[in-house]
Amino acid sequence: MNERTVFFLSDQTGVTAETLGHSLITQFDSHEYRQVTLPFIDSDDKAREAVKKIDEAAEADSFRPIVFSTLVQPEFRQIVKQAHGLHLDIFDVFLEPLEIELEQKPAHESGRAHGMSDINAYMKRIEATNFALANDDGGVSRNYEMADVILVGVSRSGKTPTCLYLALQYGVYAANYPLTEEDFETGKLPDFLQQQNHKLYGLMIAPDRLRQIRRERRPMGKYSSAQQVRYELREAEKLFKRYGIPHIDTTEFSIEEISSRILDSTGVDRRVRP
Amino acid sequence: MNERTVFFLSDQTGVTAETLGHSLITQFDSHEYRQVTLPFIDSDDKAREAVKKIDEAAEADSFRPIVFSTLVQPEFRQIVKQAHGLHLDIFDVFLEPLEIELEQKPAHESGRAHGMSDINAYMKRIEATNFALANDDGGVSRNYEMADVILVGVSRSGKTPTCLYLALQYGVYAANYPLTEEDFETGKLPDFLQQQNHKLYGLMIAPDRLRQIRRERRPMGKYSSAQQVRYELREAEKLFKRYGIPHIDTTEFSIEEISSRILDSTGVDRRVRP
Repeated sequence: MNERTVFFLSDQTGVTAETLGHSLITQFDSHEYRQVTLPFIDSDDKAREAVKKIDEAAEADSFRPIVFSTLVQPEFRQIVKQAHGLHLDIFDVFLEPLEIELEQKPAHESGRAHGMSDINAYMKRIEATNFALANDDGGVSRNYEMADVILVGVSRSGKTPTCLYLALQYGVYAANYPLTEEDFETGKLPDFLQQQNHKLYGLMIAPDRLRQIRRERRPMGKYSSAQQVRYELREAEKLFKRYGIPHIDTTEFSIEEISSRILDSTGVDRRVRP
Repeated sequence: MNERTVFFLSDQTGVTAETLGHSLITQFDSHEYRQVTLPFIDSDDKAREAVKKIDEAAEADSFRPIVFSTLVQPEFRQIVKQAHGLHLDIFDVFLEPLEIELEQKPAHESGRAHGMSDINAYMKRIEATNFALANDDGGVSRNYEMADVILVGVSRSGKTPTCLYLALQYGVYAANYPLTEEDFETGKLPDFLQQQNHKLYGLMIAPDRLRQIRRERRPMGKYSSAQQVRYELREAEKLFKRYGIPHIDTTEFSIEEISSRILDSTGVDRRVRP
């Protein structure tokens, strides 16, 4: 038996309902609820199926379910509302004030936000992703001159996922450069990187966290030793100072947050909007 | 002069406010507005800075701004509300009904949804991303037995970005396999792939769209010729039929939507929640 179930309902992917619901539910302490996403509710039948699932949870759990939804079409909202739960729908609440403000009727059409209406945005994201892949950790091509930003850091400091997220979410061209033993020994960055100094952004991470992450990859040896990890991070910091490279400690942040902070602090423009 | 400016305000990354606002604003036809994200509003000063920017837009534009916000702390909400605009804040609207339902006071602490409180989720996403990279388009390792899902399709049908999105967003282990000339000629999939038949999921795409995408990469030659593109797609479809591989036409969908539909139709569990 669950204490409580939280549903995320959508006529599309459910990403908006999940994001919205997660922001709200995490404000309360006891948020260890079972979470169920029911996407693509785009017919009466599917709406009724959702009602059935919510009612079943209401029956089985100690408390009635919480239902976050983003159902554009009023008829599906009406059906879903018959289910036993606390219903919170963004269209229910926000569409009317917008309608008044914009002096326009809403389309009540689903798929407008995530549809492929804008092929340009799709292409930009794909191109940015390809760029990130080609310019990842010693990738073959080094089109650093094309990059919007170049992330610099020690191995496993989060460069790759951050570059990919910047590409997929924002269409930003993010390359990355893993600091090498040679960089540490000479205390210098290679020339091709120095030429792009204004694009460099450093990633730092707490030694303990880095060890933990590296151990997952290679449990034994120098790579994940306390001494090596501390040495690399110390030298990385020296390099950031020497070249005046802004940097962020990623230890406490999620990939979304790191990405967003980099955009905010560098002023790099997103090429697409989600 | 802009007609109207839409602001997305947040004490965190702004992703929730953007997602919410975008869902709503796209319901109206004239949504060609200037969009401005103001993230990390975590002090009185920053809140007042936001007010200034909104008021400046109100002054310059033909219509007052629309302000979507996710400001957890009531004091920052109060400051921001002084700006001239239509204010739509999810905490303003939804926090109270949740408080009553859960019989709990909300924390009013920012960063709960995106914080790194859950290092396990972070690790899972990183591991899934590494898996996607290692198992991308003829990647070195072929740990198909570890995959949750294996995307199959012709070159440039969207396999790589979809795999990366599944990894970054949901922590799902997604590999991909690009169909080869040999597969088309023999009309067979390689043995190592047939063994994973239950995990295979096909990506299809309209010939015109595929040509357009391929031309961006290599403008000339067979690769982006109408004949070649049609041939490959026809053969891919035959293979999907022969092996009973479910598939989706990605032409009309965004990366989010393709990913979400694959999860929905395969029943693959997400390993993390956003």
